[in-house]
Amino acid sequence: MSGARMAAEMAEQPAVLRRLIARADAIAASVRELAPAPLQGSAIVARGSSDHASVYGRYLLELASGRPVSLAAPSLHLLYDAQVDYTGQLAVAVSQSGRTPEIVATLERLGGAGARTLAITNDAGSELARAAGAVVALEAGAELAVPATKTVTAQLLAFALIARALGPVPFSDDELRALPEAVAAVLEDPAPARLAARALRDDTRLVVTARGLLYGAALEAALKLQETSAIAADGLSSADLRHGPITIVETGFPVVALSAGDGPAAADVAELVELLRERGARVLTISTAAGADLPLPEVTEGLAPLVAVVRAQQLAFELALLRGRDPDAPANLSKVTAT
Amino acid sequence: MSGARMAAEMAEQPAVLRRLIARADAIAASVRELAPAPLQGSAIVARGSSDHASVYGRYLLELASGRPVSLAAPSLHLLYDAQVDYTGQLAVAVSQSGRTPEIVATLERLGGAGARTLAITNDAGSELARAAGAVVALEAGAELAVPATKTVTAQLLAFALIARALGPVPFSDDELRALPEAVAAVLEDPAPARLAARALRDDTRLVVTARGLLYGAALEAALKLQETSAIAADGLSSADLRHGPITIVETGFPVVALSAGDGPAAADVAELVELLRERGARVLTISTAAGADLPLPEVTEGLAPLVAVVRAQQLAFELALLRGRDPDAPANLSKVTAT
Repeated sequence: MSGARMAAEMAEQPAVLRRLIARADAIAASVRELAPAPLQGSAIVARGSSDHASVYGRYLLELASGRPVSLAAPSLHLLYDAQVDYTGQLAVAVSQSGRTPEIVATLERLGGAGARTLAITNDAGSELARAAGAVVALEAGAELAVPATKTVTAQLLAFALIARALGPVPFSDDELRALPEAVAAVLEDPAPARLAARALRDDTRLVVTARGLLYGAALEAALKLQETSAIAADGLSSADLRHGPITIVETGFPVVALSAGDGPAAADVAELVELLRERGARVLTISTAAGADLPLPEVTEGLAPLVAVVRAQQLAFELALLRGRDPDAPANLSKVTAT
Repeated sequence: MSGARMAAEMAEQPAVLRRLIARADAIAASVRELAPAPLQGSAIVARGSSDHASVYGRYLLELASGRPVSLAAPSLHLLYDAQVDYTGQLAVAVSQSGRTPEIVATLERLGGAGARTLAITNDAGSELARAAGAVVALEAGAELAVPATKTVTAQLLAFALIARALGPVPFSDDELRALPEAVAAVLEDPAPARLAARALRDDTRLVVTARGLLYGAALEAALKLQETSAIAADGLSSADLRHGPITIVETGFPVVALSAGDGPAAADVAELVELLRERGARVLTISTAAGADLPLPEVTEGLAPLVAVVRAQQLAFELALLRGRDPDAPANLSKVTAT
């Protein structure tokens, strides 16, 4: 069946997350041993647009460590041979396969410059894992569908667990343990995604927006829609969308807006949704709020990105089927095994 | 005349840059007084998608200071009240007007957390300037056309001058002094931009790509094309484009590729251009290389972003005129005076 692999891998997510959460304290111990407090800062090494988990990690690590978090610029180290001192820094590299040469080489450079190095990867025997001082192994199993699903939510969770090891995080251990059930609840309720897919059936462009902790989830949602349905989907923070890019939002323009809980980020997104609807945009909401087009179960904002990303996977999957595309193997796109 | 303001402001750029370069040593002295070496790191505060100068600044400041450079996440400080320690950090905020409340508030938070604070702004009397420990005033004069031109190149140069104050930079003082002439040479030669605009006349989407030091210029070029011509233009690093997004590049898809000099970034972009042409893409090159569609005068890679951005302004201007749009006041877009 068309899409069987992607569907199967999406369905594995509650189990993958549950296994990772069961190792939360062991992961915390290994992170604390690698990088004893206080850190001077952290650096995340990932391929910019292909790794949106790192955007979520960037927020969580700064909240937890209380120190600046940078996203490493590989070309500085690999093309320009920058002479840098990363003493006191925790460098976290993310690669599903652990075999992206650029990510491995950048982590090695930062380690050589004094950073403690940590790898998040699905392959604990990979080059990246061997290059790092410690490893958070995702143990998500092989991923065969082209659009990454279970490895993405596992990466998001890995960042949550690393942040939890470093300091205060915007979720409790109880909320963490409840996460797999929330993801399962979304997976068991595909009807809203089918309905929303129908609304996007003929669109060639759309914008996905969110703010703060959910911003990385918006980027990932846009990528998933682009990969499966060849729709030109842009992920934008609600703060940025309000400035220049709102110009491309005309009557009928489709926007997907993500929010969770009742914090300031959700209020900001809700305000923008009003503004977009006044401009005539067709807005689909992925939210814990009542009346959402794609409802999310009760989940704290700090962990909501994982649940929102699963809703977006479901939407991308249904939209591809509706358009007669095979979600497992989108035209023009081969599995990027090296990232 | 339609576009008269944008044309006039573009034409002022050599003079604006010349005045700023004349103050290079004074700026260096004030930066060094504000933030004596060694820094622990730097943080740049800017509205993500609306301020591409900061992407160039991110590369230059890390090369010069040898320490990690982060892009601040305003929502961490303003929405989530993150408890952070920025001791030993230089925080650089960029705002043309100096009146973006979010930028001012974020800089104040970082200053309160121990950072030395520096403002890059066109208004030395603005709130942002008053909030900062030191100011690099652009003195570019009022900008009336909606698409920002002279303030953008002035911001890029401000980052180059701040980096020069902190350590080694990828350009010499002689190359710096030659920059305004290179910009003037581009402005005096609009014919290639007119020709290239004809090639893009009917396109609704395009990608702008570059790598490393020129990556920020690609983002800015995409924004300028989007603002003036309502074309859905995405800026992508050549490393990222090679992964997922290349899927949307089909026969006839327009791509603008930026490069300069003969370093590794230029080689990487040249290789990607080959690959894109094999896929049937229509590639327009903005480059110092022989045979470029939009040629750049001889300029070192470290300063090339300023010259490439001016070529892109010219292309955006000509494309808007060709499409019957007023470059000064694009439909649906008002001057964002608050950024």
